[in-house]
Amino acid sequence: MDAQYKAAIHVTLKASVLDPQGAAVTKALHALGYQDVQDVRVGKFIEVALAAADETSARDAVARMCEQLLTNPVIESYTYELTELTV
Amino acid sequence: MDAQYKAAIHVTLKASVLDPQGAAVTKALHALGYQDVQDVRVGKFIEVALAAADETSARDAVARMCEQLLTNPVIESYTYELTELTV
Repeated sequence: MDAQYKAAIHVTLKASVLDPQGAAVTKALHALGYQDVQDVRVGKFIEVALAAADETSARDAVARMCEQLLTNPVIESYTYELTELTV
Repeated sequence: MDAQYKAAIHVTLKASVLDPQGAAVTKALHALGYQDVQDVRVGKFIEVALAAADETSARDAVARMCEQLLTNPVIESYTYELTELTV
């Protein structure tokens, strides 16, 4: 019987990669009067609900999804936390 | 002297709001063979570096930024964690 898991995945641009969206948000915040904002980086937060036999196979599946589809490994890095849902 | 803070903001669609991007990712994962994926929700992860006199004013500024610019309060909700950076 498979267990239910939820993966909370953070996808962020690597530090060396320019973030034009973050730069635009910084400018917009300055224009709104938030002069004390120094830097903004915009990433993705992806929640995946999945079934898996055990935690190891769930972690393996999430890592492969990140590499194959959810992130661009050239410019982005990711971290995730896996939670087992109790029924 | 102002202290340095970093806010890590999670912006997610409210549960009652359809997430077409998440549905597209779910379909794509199924097509790649991840049949055990049940649901995907895609949100934003925004990191803001700012200076503030103290934690209270930093929290106040971050909450106002979220309400004014970073989120659409009609369809999105947000949470954030604030960290004081030690120099």
